[in-house]
Amino acid sequence: MRVRRRKGAEEHLANYPQFVVSHPEGAKGHWCEIFGNNNPIHIEVGSGKGAFITGMAQQNPNVNYIGIDLQPSVLSYALDKVIASKCSNVKLLLVDGSSLTDYFADGEVDLMYLNFSDPWPKKRHEKRRLTYKSFLKTYQQILPDNGEIHFKTDNRGLFEYSLASMSQYGMTIKQVWLDLHASAFEGNVMTEYEEKFSNKGQVIYRVEVCFDS
Amino acid sequence: MRVRRRKGAEEHLANYPQFVVSHPEGAKGHWCEIFGNNNPIHIEVGSGKGAFITGMAQQNPNVNYIGIDLQPSVLSYALDKVIASKCSNVKLLLVDGSSLTDYFADGEVDLMYLNFSDPWPKKRHEKRRLTYKSFLKTYQQILPDNGEIHFKTDNRGLFEYSLASMSQYGMTIKQVWLDLHASAFEGNVMTEYEEKFSNKGQVIYRVEVCFDS
Repeated sequence: MRVRRRKGAEEHLANYPQFVVSHPEGAKGHWCEIFGNNNPIHIEVGSGKGAFITGMAQQNPNVNYIGIDLQPSVLSYALDKVIASKCSNVKLLLVDGSSLTDYFADGEVDLMYLNFSDPWPKKRHEKRRLTYKSFLKTYQQILPDNGEIHFKTDNRGLFEYSLASMSQYGMTIKQVWLDLHASAFEGNVMTEYEEKFSNKGQVIYRVEVCFDS
Repeated sequence: MRVRRRKGAEEHLANYPQFVVSHPEGAKGHWCEIFGNNNPIHIEVGSGKGAFITGMAQQNPNVNYIGIDLQPSVLSYALDKVIASKCSNVKLLLVDGSSLTDYFADGEVDLMYLNFSDPWPKKRHEKRRLTYKSFLKTYQQILPDNGEIHFKTDNRGLFEYSLASMSQYGMTIKQVWLDLHASAFEGNVMTEYEEKFSNKGQVIYRVEVCFDS
């Protein structure tokens, strides 16, 4: 997500260590202690301005959520939403999605969300797409056997690429939606981006895939 | 495909044994002899009025094509196109798609096409969909290891179902198109149905999937 730099974003994040995990390397293997319970942990890689992760946290109080983004300005807007939500089951993490194994132990994450990831449409940027095989390998490591990724996007090219990439990695499609908002899917929490573009008539694609055990 | 009964369809088919294989059980394991060469054999299950199979035969003279349908009236229109095309590399077969192993030996078919199959939208009719697992098992038997199915449809529900069904069967998505006519795909041969509905603005979905060896 491209956003203008927000003045004081880093300080804002540093002021809320109860929401923004300040030493993420130390959290590896200790997320249950950080949340103070044994509830399942769901993460969103590329959480943007936080509408999805905060909305999910409100909808599902018995799940722990972690929103991950690598841009301080973006994450600082997510922090505003987390503060306003008064939810105790959501944390934020300012790290890069390619280094998730530094912050999560093997199998420590129960479910993973990818929402409206950067499409990187040029072939030479394929390796930057969050559904490229090297990322899938990282996700597989921190998820349990048969762990799932729930992915949605409005970008046709990225979705076509991702279905093939995940299938060729050996993942199995559990269910796919080629027009999410026209479907009977219940409980969809929209991202900021999704709300804006679906209002313009853009089709939203969604898929639930799992790794083989 | 639902069509009005055509008077004399059966007789019309019987009059052209050079195109309509009259004793298909006897053809099993002998398709190379029937075509008189060792070219690869591609079949279309549910070939309808034959625009696709005839168009493909014209486009690819070094491939042998077999169009399969279970309705004499429908197949008789396909026969008209085959006659008009003057192609020697296309045959028609009046049989049910669920009994393909009666007419093809293991691995005898090199590639399979499914185009605009009946969507059977009701859940209780799932077993009739041509991408239901029992059909996939039949296709797997007559295709070689890593054999491919190329499938297109305008029906969103059927396409969503088919991606999941094929993936759960263990097939791998090689490539997928979520708006075929807006893509750079070359050499697309349209079916009668495709021409009609894409002109009305309907999106055409396409996927190439392969069985694992």
